[in-house]
Amino acid sequence: MKLLEDRILRDGNILPGGILKVDSFLNHRIDPQLLYEMAQELKRLYAGEEINIILTIEASGIALASLVGYVFGCPILFAKKSKSRNISDKVYAVEVESFTHGNTNTVLLSKEYLRPEHRVLIVDDFLATGAALVGLRAICEQAGATVVGAGIAIEKAFQGGGERLRAEGLRIESLARIAQMRDDGLSFCE
Amino acid sequence: MKLLEDRILRDGNILPGGILKVDSFLNHRIDPQLLYEMAQELKRLYAGEEINIILTIEASGIALASLVGYVFGCPILFAKKSKSRNISDKVYAVEVESFTHGNTNTVLLSKEYLRPEHRVLIVDDFLATGAALVGLRAICEQAGATVVGAGIAIEKAFQGGGERLRAEGLRIESLARIAQMRDDGLSFCE
Repeated sequence: MKLLEDRILRDGNILPGGILKVDSFLNHRIDPQLLYEMAQELKRLYAGEEINIILTIEASGIALASLVGYVFGCPILFAKKSKSRNISDKVYAVEVESFTHGNTNTVLLSKEYLRPEHRVLIVDDFLATGAALVGLRAICEQAGATVVGAGIAIEKAFQGGGERLRAEGLRIESLARIAQMRDDGLSFCE
Repeated sequence: MKLLEDRILRDGNILPGGILKVDSFLNHRIDPQLLYEMAQELKRLYAGEEINIILTIEASGIALASLVGYVFGCPILFAKKSKSRNISDKVYAVEVESFTHGNTNTVLLSKEYLRPEHRVLIVDDFLATGAALVGLRAICEQAGATVVGAGIAIEKAFQGGGERLRAEGLRIESLARIAQMRDDGLSFCE
């Protein structure tokens, strides 16, 4: 999606350690009109697919998912991060490692909100190693829900998570796919 | 706002300790069409006021703020919670006590995103003791920005935070104001 790629080139910052900082429009400071256009693009890409719920993970996925839910006309679920391993039998729980934060969180979702009749679009801001996506897919499997696909803002294709998950049969639509990233710049996949 | 009050009566649950659980439409599971209507109502209430940025706090304020930003046509900032007290000179930082979680977080906002020319609408899902609102207002004061007012989904008026802050001159528009809450039910302010 050219609009997002242009915005990354204009406003993104590359930090040491392979971190792409998009704090000025996607995290921390958010441009809701850009998110709306991104949601419309995901709607176009998934046209013809029945999707009746949007699933994301707190905190940075919530803003995009909110506009996606609005555009798709269906509810949003956000899985919650918890340091606690003291989990009740009323929640689905998976462990998810964060590339950005260098830690592992238990991610929780109330069982009452995700059921076998749900056809899920997983939404997140970043796809790198794929850990969050694997965790959210595992929650859907526990619930017996169908994962129609994933809608990602920025995929760091060079980290391999997207390639591996597509090979496993998961449909992933990433609105910007970064092929290479060095301290002095980045390039997008063709 | 009758739409929200009716939804609280239909789908809200009162838990021991004065917790109103609205997980099925406002937190955790979110109804984006309801949030859109709430954003439109805030737009109507603040008609004629110049507002050029929306400020909220992660995580549960982000969904509403995203739709409010979309409807108002202006960027959203979300202050981040951090356990760390190791704060750089590039962020504003305040301490905020959480009524729901019974803990205190340091709340951070990058200085580069909030400046004296900003006219801020603070958005949050709940107003109880007012701690989050006081914290976000303090960040705006540190930045030299103007707080035009606050837009709240649900105010627990009986906890007094809203009354105290209005007496200090802060404009607060709450879309549902709960006068009383007992284990067996609640009533709204007239």
